[in-house]
Amino acid sequence: MSSLFSWPVRVYYEDTDAGGIVYYANYLKFFERARTEWLRASGIGQQELIDDHGAGFVVRSVQIDYHAAARLDDELVLTLSIAKLGRASVLFSQQALRGQQLLASAHVKVGCVDLTSLRARAIPDDAAAKMRAT
Amino acid sequence: MSSLFSWPVRVYYEDTDAGGIVYYANYLKFFERARTEWLRASGIGQQELIDDHGAGFVVRSVQIDYHAAARLDDELVLTLSIAKLGRASVLFSQQALRGQQLLASAHVKVGCVDLTSLRARAIPDDAAAKMRAT
Amino acid sequence: MSSLFSWPVRVYYEDTDAGGIVYYANYLKFFERARTEWLRASGIGQQELIDDHGAGFVVRSVQIDYHAAARLDDELVLTLSIAKLGRASVLFSQQALRGQQLLASAHVKVGCVDLTSLRARAIPDDAAAKMRAT
Amino acid sequence: MSSLFSWPVRVYYEDTDAGGIVYYANYLKFFERARTEWLRASGIGQQELIDDHGAGFVVRSVQIDYHAAARLDDELVLTLSIAKLGRASVLFSQQALRGQQLLASAHVKVGCVDLTSLRARAIPDDAAAKMRAT
Repeated sequence: MSSLFSWPVRVYYEDTDAGGIVYYANYLKFFERARTEWLRASGIGQQELIDDHGAGFVVRSVQIDYHAAARLDDELVLTLSIAKLGRASVLFSQQALRGQQLLASAHVKVGCVDLTSLRARAIPDDAAAKMRAT
Repeated sequence: MSSLFSWPVRVYYEDTDAGGIVYYANYLKFFERARTEWLRASGIGQQELIDDHGAGFVVRSVQIDYHAAARLDDELVLTLSIAKLGRASVLFSQQALRGQQLLASAHVKVGCVDLTSLRARAIPDDAAAKMRAT
Repeated sequence: MSSLFSWPVRVYYEDTDAGGIVYYANYLKFFERARTEWLRASGIGQQELIDDHGAGFVVRSVQIDYHAAARLDDELVLTLSIAKLGRASVLFSQQALRGQQLLASAHVKVGCVDLTSLRARAIPDDAAAKMRAT
Repeated sequence: MSSLFSWPVRVYYEDTDAGGIVYYANYLKFFERARTEWLRASGIGQQELIDDHGAGFVVRSVQIDYHAAARLDDELVLTLSIAKLGRASVLFSQQALRGQQLLASAHVKVGCVDLTSLRARAIPDDAAAKMRAT
């Protein structure tokens, strides 16, 4: 549906665990960095969503598969595309790669909420249009 | 299939983010604490698995749904049961609750590997027997 | 000046790094858990400080020395005492021990601030009295 | 003593806490990223230190002062210089800035150790020479 966005990340000690590999929860940090940078690159300002619409995004669900381990000093590339754009939610397809090797792949469902009530609401039109345009 | 194990966790500043709630990746930390304590309570020594069998567990996949947000100082209870015990993997059903309210629920698939080759291998008999007994 | 407060902590994978030891920044997480639990045990409600006084605590400085490494599954004890109680700040003396062995020791200076202006302000009388009483 | 090295960092949700600011322990993560990148830029390979000398670096102490808070989406610059180069240790002077504003400043003492015995040892000559050259 959409073009592929990519974002680099370097593995530091903070990302690893005593198994010598990147701790499994930290891929969710990496994937969120990619979504944040994708929003920025798409011209969707999270602060403007708050100021103009009182709206924000929250993660509804994550399905992540771990294929191979990343290690200290590895240079990873995070990729992102929209798998499905709904009225009130976006399903992202995200991957972590080292070179050509796939390390982790995920589907992350992010919902738009009214930040006062925390109830689901439609993605504001301008943001949805920019998402469709990517 | 198995009885329910539970483990308490208190939410500290380190667990929260600027949204005022527990950061979404941190539930994976909480769930791993519960699995670790469940192994300990089940009499399955991770160090003995290494010493006697050269075996260890790695997370293969996570499916997590976020239902409601946890906040600073909240006392959560993490529950765990085995959804499926395979020859070389275990599927855990895990939940995070605040009182009766379900905050997050997950299925976490953990595989047994040979720590030298990192290849899948059967769960050692004694550990599998203890898992069946819980 | 004050009696010794102690709080236990177990080392999980999330706390360790690829060096096989607890990552150095994570002692600051541990030490904050101890300060939070000490406040709770002292009857000083952080929410009441906010509601009644618009006041909160922020860390001004940390001096930490690392003496020996903690490892996966270690059971640590965190100790805390007040080294100096000022009008607008508290200096905590904190340690992380494994049995009798000292792993890390720190002095952490925490200041009281007006949460609106973020300017330093006197510790509210009731909280200061409880701190003196510990 | 040495020239100033700088490294940029963007603040993501993972770095913040419920106070709406960067969590105090996370500056230690940021500062380590800067030290790692400085080593890389200086041509000092940590893997070669291990392979050729069985040597590595461990943090001995940190003195950090927090001057102002960083917030979500902030672009920080981390600076680093060597304050003192000893036979077996290096004292780094490190800062986190947002534009011209100083947010945090630290002195971090890092010691060279024999990775087998974990005892202090002299910094290998080639690495020390490269440190002097920066």
